[in-house]
Amino acid sequence: MSQSLNHASAPTDRGQCRTIDLSNKIAQITAYWQPRVVAEMNDYQFKVVKVEGEFLWHQHADTDEAFFVLEGELRIDFRGGHSGDGSIVLRAGQIAVVPKGVEHKPYALAEVKLMLIEPRGVVNTGDCAKGGRSVENDQWV
Amino acid sequence: MSQSLNHASAPTDRGQCRTIDLSNKIAQITAYWQPRVVAEMNDYQFKVVKVEGEFLWHQHADTDEAFFVLEGELRIDFRGGHSGDGSIVLRAGQIAVVPKGVEHKPYALAEVKLMLIEPRGVVNTGDCAKGGRSVENDQWV
Repeated sequence: MSQSLNHASAPTDRGQCRTIDLSNKIAQITAYWQPRVVAEMNDYQFKVVKVEGEFLWHQHADTDEAFFVLEGELRIDFRGGHSGDGSIVLRAGQIAVVPKGVEHKPYALAEVKLMLIEPRGVVNTGDCAKGGRSVENDQWV
Repeated sequence: MSQSLNHASAPTDRGQCRTIDLSNKIAQITAYWQPRVVAEMNDYQFKVVKVEGEFLWHQHADTDEAFFVLEGELRIDFRGGHSGDGSIVLRAGQIAVVPKGVEHKPYALAEVKLMLIEPRGVVNTGDCAKGGRSVENDQWV
């Protein structure tokens, strides 16, 4: 599977007690929309990913999800949330939390580098299998 | 109490579904070592804080804790961890996760701006009350 490129096993220290440079980690990822784990905090994972173009509408029924942009400009469209349909833009140094159950679609006109924070086991495409866009979990970089 | 300066109530949206600029949030904090919540993800909180000088040795018995440096250079000393005593340095764009039960002490020679990620209810000074350095939880900015 193409998404197994760059696949590294979880380190025994789970990426803890050491300095993790997020840009250096992202530089090791060759493809877009391929999140890679860099560290764990309890049962949560810090993942880095680079993206370009449009993702799919999806939701996570059981968990919120956090986005932190490191470089570039990420748009996230929402529908059906408590505040209705909408759209936000995130630039470097900005975060957003998407509540559980809220449909969302990330979009990057040009390349964006970001960190995701979410519980271990969350599928990138949400609660419905979405063909070729789903990525195998627990791939470390 | 001085730590109640800047105290804002949790917003009804818990800081979700909107863009949060971490530097802008930190600019609203007047004192060092005073974490302020900016958003929640499930039962976790994103907090921003500016620090300068030395904190106390402390640990959190029940939870890991994540540090993300936005500006400046943060040193974290460890003792008693799985890898023995040690020290790491974090600069802008770098993260570290301190495992539960590992004693640690943050230190900033000059001002550092950072984000903390940890479960709601974690006391900044760890499991032992530490006099004047403890900060009331759930203060938003």
